[in-house]
Amino acid sequence: MTDDAPAIQDFYPEDLSHCYGCGRLNEVGLHLRTRWDGDDTVTRFTPAPYHTAIPGSVYGGLVASLLDCAGTGSASAAVLRAEGRQMGDGPAPRFVTAALKVDFLKPTPLGPELEIRGRIVEIKGRKVVVEETLSADGVVTATGHVVAVRMRNDVPAPAGGA
Amino acid sequence: MTDDAPAIQDFYPEDLSHCYGCGRLNEVGLHLRTRWDGDDTVTRFTPAPYHTAIPGSVYGGLVASLLDCAGTGSASAAVLRAEGRQMGDGPAPRFVTAALKVDFLKPTPLGPELEIRGRIVEIKGRKVVVEETLSADGVVTATGHVVAVRMRNDVPAPAGGA
Repeated sequence: MTDDAPAIQDFYPEDLSHCYGCGRLNEVGLHLRTRWDGDDTVTRFTPAPYHTAIPGSVYGGLVASLLDCAGTGSASAAVLRAEGRQMGDGPAPRFVTAALKVDFLKPTPLGPELEIRGRIVEIKGRKVVVEETLSADGVVTATGHVVAVRMRNDVPAPAGGA
Repeated sequence: MTDDAPAIQDFYPEDLSHCYGCGRLNEVGLHLRTRWDGDDTVTRFTPAPYHTAIPGSVYGGLVASLLDCAGTGSASAAVLRAEGRQMGDGPAPRFVTAALKVDFLKPTPLGPELEIRGRIVEIKGRKVVVEETLSADGVVTATGHVVAVRMRNDVPAPAGGA
């Protein structure tokens, strides 16, 4: 996996690509991008100095944001793969978060790039459950549990028809 | 309760007041402020247009951020009150988040001021548990469950001593 490999957010429908966390069309957002690495998903982000909590640590709201958008991205990638499709083979399904649980195991150091790894634990109907770790310099500092639900009518209907 | 009433974050120790969510000294942060309203805490915030998720809705990471910092602020206020102190009667205790659970009940509309109400459900040793609702125009769109833990050495030691 390389950082210029396609990411699932590259293929969200245009009108659903403005999320502050992961929308490629949000001018001031975080532009999170989620890719496969084997059976894990990987999302990387380097916080800015102002993303601080207590001195030297990343604030919890950013940790939650990263886990949230990495979770919905992972869900989308998982459904695409389950359908036997590749990223870029049509628009990617778009998920919203129904529930997010974050356990802050230790302070997340502010400075290094953070890596969120996602593992798909359930796909059932419109629901996908993702377990995640967030690490800095190889040390897991937080875990996430995301229940994502696929939006209705998230991709355009095929052209034509009756 | 009025919006110019003191807020617990006004009394965090200066060196612990740079959090992006709730630090009064973070130049670009959200500057969340948490006050008492009877036995509830109240924190208010009006998202910017770029805090979007899907069109018309607030992105989940911001919802999580608001619940997170409102939770640690509520915990601080609760311990202060439990000690029989008023806000401003010495530095406020400073908490970090050990766990955050967010249930997104419905989309949070982007536009109106959001109100987070916190209810203290447990104070035990250094741990405080807070249950929260987040509402827009009086409709609850998300709930939060925060386990906050008081930082060690969060307030300066008294001057003097041996």
